[in-house]
Amino acid sequence: MKSNNDIAGYGLVRSLRWTDGELYFLDQTRLPIEVIEERQDSVEQVWDSIKLLKVRGAPAIGVGAAYGLLVGIKAQASQALPSYLAHIEKTADYLNSSRPTAVNLSWALKRMVAFAKASVKAGAAKDSPSLYRLLVEEAVRIHEEDKAICRAIGENGVGLIGEGKGVLTHCNAGALATSELGTATAPMYLAHSKGTKFRIYSDETRPLLQGARLTSWELKESGLDVTLICDNMAAFVMSKGLVDLCIVGCDRVAANGDTANKIGTMGVAILAKHFGIPFYVACPSSTVDLATRHGDDIVIEEREAEEVTFFGARRTGPEGVKVRNPAFDVTPNGLIAGFITEKGLIKPPFAENLAKHFGPKA
Amino acid sequence: MKSNNDIAGYGLVRSLRWTDGELYFLDQTRLPIEVIEERQDSVEQVWDSIKLLKVRGAPAIGVGAAYGLLVGIKAQASQALPSYLAHIEKTADYLNSSRPTAVNLSWALKRMVAFAKASVKAGAAKDSPSLYRLLVEEAVRIHEEDKAICRAIGENGVGLIGEGKGVLTHCNAGALATSELGTATAPMYLAHSKGTKFRIYSDETRPLLQGARLTSWELKESGLDVTLICDNMAAFVMSKGLVDLCIVGCDRVAANGDTANKIGTMGVAILAKHFGIPFYVACPSSTVDLATRHGDDIVIEEREAEEVTFFGARRTGPEGVKVRNPAFDVTPNGLIAGFITEKGLIKPPFAENLAKHFGPKA
Repeated sequence: MKSNNDIAGYGLVRSLRWTDGELYFLDQTRLPIEVIEERQDSVEQVWDSIKLLKVRGAPAIGVGAAYGLLVGIKAQASQALPSYLAHIEKTADYLNSSRPTAVNLSWALKRMVAFAKASVKAGAAKDSPSLYRLLVEEAVRIHEEDKAICRAIGENGVGLIGEGKGVLTHCNAGALATSELGTATAPMYLAHSKGTKFRIYSDETRPLLQGARLTSWELKESGLDVTLICDNMAAFVMSKGLVDLCIVGCDRVAANGDTANKIGTMGVAILAKHFGIPFYVACPSSTVDLATRHGDDIVIEEREAEEVTFFGARRTGPEGVKVRNPAFDVTPNGLIAGFITEKGLIKPPFAENLAKHFGPKA
Repeated sequence: MKSNNDIAGYGLVRSLRWTDGELYFLDQTRLPIEVIEERQDSVEQVWDSIKLLKVRGAPAIGVGAAYGLLVGIKAQASQALPSYLAHIEKTADYLNSSRPTAVNLSWALKRMVAFAKASVKAGAAKDSPSLYRLLVEEAVRIHEEDKAICRAIGENGVGLIGEGKGVLTHCNAGALATSELGTATAPMYLAHSKGTKFRIYSDETRPLLQGARLTSWELKESGLDVTLICDNMAAFVMSKGLVDLCIVGCDRVAANGDTANKIGTMGVAILAKHFGIPFYVACPSSTVDLATRHGDDIVIEEREAEEVTFFGARRTGPEGVKVRNPAFDVTPNGLIAGFITEKGLIKPPFAENLAKHFGPKA
C-alpha cells in the first residue's frame, strides 16, 4: 500500500484513484486498523461504498461519484446512443440515492449527465463508445479541478507555516476527504514537501474520532510530524506554547464569515483567541454560501445519542441518559484570522472581502 | 440496588458502605453497564478493589482503606493485644501497597494505626476485642468527617444554583469519588434535595470517560436532570445560553489559587470566561497545598499513549502515532470565580484568602 501513496512528491495517501479504467476506493471505515484499497467492480458496490462511508468528505464523494458513474456504464457502451444515454441517466439517479443530502454527490452526477447530453446534442459523441470516452475525460476533469483547488489552497496557506512552528487542526479536512492535498491539510503537505520542519497537533474529534482515525493516520502515513491529542488537551498544548496557528476545514461559510464546521471547532477558536494564536479556516469556494447571511441562519444537525453513549458495541454512557450531540458548531467571524481559499488568503472585513472574491461580480 | 442508594434524602449512590460489620464497595469499573455492590470478605479482596479502581477518588479510597483494615483484622481479635497490634500494623502496610501514590490511602491507614497504638497506650483498649471496637468507631469517624466536609461544601455552594439554571461539570468529583455528596456535585445534590429545578451538563472527559461512566450515571441515578456531552460540545451549550455556572473538583490548589484538575478543566474555564460564565472549584481543605506557590510548580503526570489510541480492546488511533496524554492541567487563578470549601465560599484575592482560611494561623 505504501508505494501507492506517493503522488506528485507530496507523499500523501489517496482516498480514491482511477487507474487503467478501474476505480479504487481506500476503505476509510477500516482505518487506522487496516489499509485496504477496494476495486469498484459494479455500480452497486460504488453505491454501498458511498452509503457506508468507505469514501467520505464532500469533494471525495463528488469525484468518486463521477468515476462511479463510469463503472456503472462501462459495460453497456455497445448499446445504441439513445438507450445508452437513458442508461446513464438511470445509473446517475441510482448513485445519487446513496447519500441524498450530500451536495457534491448530486452536483457531480448532474454535471456528468448534462455533459453527456450536451456531447450528444453537439455531435461530439457520435456513438456510445465515444460518449463513454468523453465522460471519462469529464470525470478526470472533475478530479483535476478538485486537486487544483486543494493545491491552490495549499499555496495560499503554506506561507503561514514557518520552520519550527506548531499547527493544530480539528476533524479531517485532509487528503482522505478530498482527492489530493485536502483543504486544511494542504498548506501542511506543501510545507512538508518544501522541507519545512514543523509539528501538527490533531484533535481526536469526538464522537466519531475523525482526527484520531483519519487525520493523524494520513499525516503520519505521509511522514509529517503529527501528535494525536484528545479534544480536551488543546488548551494544554496551547498553554505550553506548542501551537502557533490553527487551521481547520469548514462545512459552510456565511456571507459575514461565520463558519459552520465539525463540533468542537468553535471551542478551538475560543481557546486560540485566549492564547493569542491565529485561527484560520481552509475554505474551497464551494463552501462559501453568500445566501446565508450569518451563522444564526445555519441549522445544526443533531445526531443520535448512541454516538456519544456507545463506543463500537460497548456502552460507555448510562442507559437512557439525556445526550446532546450536535454534529457542527458555528465559529463567529470575530474569532477567525483569515480564510485560506483557492482565490487567496482572505482577511477581515469578511463580509466585504468574501463578497469581492465569491460574489456574483467576482 | 436502587433501594440502597437513597441516603439522608439526597437520593444518591454510595461508593461504599459499612453495614452490620461488613464492608461493601460499589464496583466502579463495571459502571455504567452493571451496578454491582461487592462485599469485601478479605483484606486481599480490599487490596484488589483499591488496586483495580473498583473504589476510586481520594476521599473514598481513604475511607475504604480505614474500613478495609477492619476487614483484615476482624477475625484475629482473639489474639493477645501485643500480637494483635503487630497484626494491625502489618495489615495496614499491606493495604497501603495497593496504590502507593494515593495520599488519602496512607493518611487514613496511618491514622488508624496511630489511633490503635494510642488507645492501647492510654489503656482505653484493654483487650483485642475492645481495640477492634474502638477502631470501628475511628473508621466511622473518618467516614463521618468526609461526609461532613462534602455536606459543608454543598451548603456553601448551594446558593449558587438558582431555579432554572444550567451547571456544567467536568470529570467525576461526585458521590462515587467520596463517601457521600461528592465535592463538585455536593451543591447540586443539595439544590436537588431542596426541590430546585436545574439542569447539569456532564463533559464525558476523555480519555477515561469519568464524566460519561460515573458522573452522568450517579446524577441520573439520583434523579437529577443531567445531559451527557462530549468535551468538545461545552462551547456549543455555553453559546446557546444553557450554562449559567461551572463547578469542577480539584486535585491540588496552589497558594495563589492556580488549580490542578483533570485534563480539560482549563479549557472549560477559558470557554466560561469567553462567555461570561462564572467558574467555581469545589475544594476540600485536603487539596489546598500552600507549600506550592503557583501552578508552574505542579508537575503534570503524562500517561500511556494507549489510553488515547485504544478504546477498550479496539484501536482508534494509528499504530505508532505520537500522543500527548497529560492527566491534568492547571487552571490559572484568574479564570476562577471562587473556591467552594467546607470553610466557606472563597473569593479573590486568592493568595490572601486561601492563606486566611487554610494557613497555619487559620
